[in-house]
Amino acid sequence: MSQIMEMLVRRGFIWQSFEIYGGMAGFIDYAPLGNGLRRKIENLWREFFVVNERSVEIDTPTIGIEEVFIASGHAEGFTDVAIECSNCGKVFRADHYVKEKLNLEVDPTVEAVESVIDEFNLKCECGGSFKKPEHFNLMFETIIGPGKGKKGYLRPETAQGIFIAFKRLSDYFRDKLPFGVAQIGRAYRNEISPRQGVIRLREFNQAELEFFCHPNEKKHPSFERYANEVVTLVDKFDKEHRITLREAVERGIIAHELLAYFIGKTREFLLKAGIKDEGLRFRQHKDDERAHYAVDCWDAEVLLSYGWIEVVGIADRSDYDLSRHTQFGREELSIFVPFDEPIKVKKKKIIPNMTKLGPAFRDKAKKIAEELEKLEEAGREIKLVIDGEEVTITSDFFEIKEVEEEVYGERVIPHVIEPSFGLDRITYAVLEHSFETDYVDGEERRVLRLKRYLAPVQVAVLPLLSKEDFVSIAEEIASELRGNGIYTEVDVTGSIGRRYRRFDEIGTPFCITVDHQTFEDDTVTIRDRDTTSQVRVERGRIVETIKSLIFSERDIKEVGQVFRA
Amino acid sequence: MSQIMEMLVRRGFIWQSFEIYGGMAGFIDYAPLGNGLRRKIENLWREFFVVNERSVEIDTPTIGIEEVFIASGHAEGFTDVAIECSNCGKVFRADHYVKEKLNLEVDPTVEAVESVIDEFNLKCECGGSFKKPEHFNLMFETIIGPGKGKKGYLRPETAQGIFIAFKRLSDYFRDKLPFGVAQIGRAYRNEISPRQGVIRLREFNQAELEFFCHPNEKKHPSFERYANEVVTLVDKFDKEHRITLREAVERGIIAHELLAYFIGKTREFLLKAGIKDEGLRFRQHKDDERAHYAVDCWDAEVLLSYGWIEVVGIADRSDYDLSRHTQFGREELSIFVPFDEPIKVKKKKIIPNMTKLGPAFRDKAKKIAEELEKLEEAGREIKLVIDGEEVTITSDFFEIKEVEEEVYGERVIPHVIEPSFGLDRITYAVLEHSFETDYVDGEERRVLRLKRYLAPVQVAVLPLLSKEDFVSIAEEIASELRGNGIYTEVDVTGSIGRRYRRFDEIGTPFCITVDHQTFEDDTVTIRDRDTTSQVRVERGRIVETIKSLIFSERDIKEVGQVFRA
Repeated sequence: MSQIMEMLVRRGFIWQSFEIYGGMAGFIDYAPLGNGLRRKIENLWREFFVVNERSVEIDTPTIGIEEVFIASGHAEGFTDVAIECSNCGKVFRADHYVKEKLNLEVDPTVEAVESVIDEFNLKCECGGSFKKPEHFNLMFETIIGPGKGKKGYLRPETAQGIFIAFKRLSDYFRDKLPFGVAQIGRAYRNEISPRQGVIRLREFNQAELEFFCHPNEKKHPSFERYANEVVTLVDKFDKEHRITLREAVERGIIAHELLAYFIGKTREFLLKAGIKDEGLRFRQHKDDERAHYAVDCWDAEVLLSYGWIEVVGIADRSDYDLSRHTQFGREELSIFVPFDEPIKVKKKKIIPNMTKLGPAFRDKAKKIAEELEKLEEAGREIKLVIDGEEVTITSDFFEIKEVEEEVYGERVIPHVIEPSFGLDRITYAVLEHSFETDYVDGEERRVLRLKRYLAPVQVAVLPLLSKEDFVSIAEEIASELRGNGIYTEVDVTGSIGRRYRRFDEIGTPFCITVDHQTFEDDTVTIRDRDTTSQVRVERGRIVETIKSLIFSERDIKEVGQVFRA
Repeated sequence: MSQIMEMLVRRGFIWQSFEIYGGMAGFIDYAPLGNGLRRKIENLWREFFVVNERSVEIDTPTIGIEEVFIASGHAEGFTDVAIECSNCGKVFRADHYVKEKLNLEVDPTVEAVESVIDEFNLKCECGGSFKKPEHFNLMFETIIGPGKGKKGYLRPETAQGIFIAFKRLSDYFRDKLPFGVAQIGRAYRNEISPRQGVIRLREFNQAELEFFCHPNEKKHPSFERYANEVVTLVDKFDKEHRITLREAVERGIIAHELLAYFIGKTREFLLKAGIKDEGLRFRQHKDDERAHYAVDCWDAEVLLSYGWIEVVGIADRSDYDLSRHTQFGREELSIFVPFDEPIKVKKKKIIPNMTKLGPAFRDKAKKIAEELEKLEEAGREIKLVIDGEEVTITSDFFEIKEVEEEVYGERVIPHVIEPSFGLDRITYAVLEHSFETDYVDGEERRVLRLKRYLAPVQVAVLPLLSKEDFVSIAEEIASELRGNGIYTEVDVTGSIGRRYRRFDEIGTPFCITVDHQTFEDDTVTIRDRDTTSQVRVERGRIVETIKSLIFSERDIKEVGQVFRA
């Protein structure tokens, strides 16, 4: 186990799930501190992608009925190629196994895998030979209801729950494009043989935004906010660029402004969460890697001990999803977009002659007239089926007129731009990028330099002695801080130095110490995690001081005189 | 559909899931406003039961491996009795069907159901007769991994994820009882034939607190906070009491103070969320209704259009869960509890005589001595198995001494008190209890009197006219409010009266209107949802005024002169 994983387990960030039953690859528990950090990252995401956009958030079931995933293509196409040993029965994900054993990239198709196995005489780790490779669907399957029930799947992405509610959502936005719909929640992928610890999970947390726009208007009013930011791009030809987003759009590297906007916004979010810029790049999907319907797709990748790892995917999914669900479902998922000015269109119109129809067809005449009016073309004779009976209407029963009609708009299937975030990977990446070792007083110190506003424990209150008068003041201070929404712990155990180290290691930005002087002049010390500088502050000013430090990047020097650095 | 359900769907609180594919009973979508409300209720719960207790929150997988639920008893016992029609194939939950058709309460056992069917000649709605009743397990089943994989279930409660992590959790709390561990998230129950709309869901949201305590210390330091509250209790003999929690404990109606504390705290939470006191009671489980391991169990029930509905269960689960997982898992889930003073205990000890053992048994002597020391009793001869070989040790090779040892504490299996909240039912109950019809200016008005701090849209900014100068000021005000964490919408469409009604109906507590006077003296109006009173406030004071209103129950009169009531 790496040094950081050891710390994350020991300190209570992440635990192995089902540990007392031997564990199970692909599942983790968020322990108290990891849960606190991930929830705060979720809220930061919500601030960026919901509150601060023309967006709303919804929450749809994690179980979906089969129809949804037939339409989305997952029932057929959400697969990996698996190889099973005919001797020991172990099953591996073929492309990963080939990469690991032969250091080869193999296309994830049955044919390609089969030919690699033949060519290199690839065997199982036990020496056995592999059966014929097979597609394995990565959705968890279940049955809803008793008896034969109805087939369901655990969702492989939160997005489908948004697409199938599109009609309701466009009503909510009164059919006005563009609008965004977000969802934060669990998604599932029944990995064949997950190995990379917290990186490849079978159950994970996504935050997705589906931003619906007019197909001809892939722009964003706030693009200027990011246009001059210099980002690291790796294009589909593996060429690296350090250029501004504006230039990337102008040179056609990024397909359009709206994608570039979300690349800029994603970058701002990741930096704000604590990812380091030098460990962040955006990589474009190659032509054969991209989904067939996607116009362009970029992954945010973060450099970790595992290598460059994808943490966000930003794709232009075109009208694929809405079109598919229109085709398979009961509703047309489109929007009526009015023109700026109504357009005049010439049209042929069939005008029934009631004076003649009446006497000739009597009680059927009215129905015939209605049917005739629906037609857009007519020859010399028209055959209609009225009440199950065929009637022939000759041209003397109607007239054809050319009329001019006003058309007010057209039905449009919106396109969707999707920034899709893997919250577990982001949480882990933030931890890796924040974990440092430095030297304090000649001793090695492990410190988690989490952003102050994201730290799961923001303040530790430490009575210098474990005597009751010290402890009760510490508890009072803690409860006042908690009342102001600040995550606060009191710790009584161990020397003060040891306690500082403990809170440095879990990323607590500030330690408040109740010491002998507190009883003399009603002051406490506040110690800054990053510089280990300390200042003295009156008790009455603690809450205000901590608040001003936590929601900013202010230096502790600004709130009092440093007496120990 | 009831008037409130119609409103909830139309306005965007709750939608039917998979609507374009015909829907599926037991699943709902949280639409934008419903999601906002539920998330806020979750945060309120977190404040009450995590931040404000000696508690932490964790987040464990929704999929569990089979072993967990064999140990918990769910694999065997989490069932309902189902009856299937031999003609049309429809399946019903037996006790619900009997209740509906015969207005009879039947025990949920195969035998009881069978005899009711026989006695009353109960038929299916189609006229067909029923097959023999069967137990149906209510957990959704799935397979983890490829090939035969491993059986897994979707968790029926979040609690088990806490129990199986107990060892890690007690480490986190440094083995100091009591401590609480909370979890908020999805749980699943594969209902046989769910019918009650949002009340009986197959996928739902739980907030559970597992409060671990010493079996002999079922008290809480903050009990006094609730001791004198008068609550409505319905005891297990169906007798109703309006008494204080202190009296209920003293008279033995509630088993102990810790349960009473959580009843008091649950009540405070529900009232704070907007449940009305007159529609809230606590009902004790009857002896035959309670799980066999539970010491005492109380449901918080809320009066809704469906009748009295359980929204919270508060149970003393004793040491059942930790004992079962100790029995089935690899770890002893107990805590070492030190005595106040070490206790002296007399003990027999076996002292090997090495001078004799050495020559007689040579290289085995050391192992023999070690085994002897482990024994607590000895006869004249001892048989041991050393390296797979039996050896007999006669009493001249050892001595038995009586010694006095100090014992510092004992291993204890904590008991657990569990308040378990159904967040979906609570969200719906809050909506029903907040929905009212009154008359304003002689016209009927529908208004959702949500607590100000829970409203999904807290402020609407309304430009009186849809002209650009009005709208741009409205957008400025909205963006300033959003920047201060207040959920704000701008609405331009329709008459001002119609817009007020729209926001009354979704529970928005305050509407700010930009009108002609705004351009003269830089003021806006603020309108209060509940009284429809309006005051005029300078633009510079909007944020501060709204903040002071939203996080309190202050009357709008206190912030300015009412000019229209």
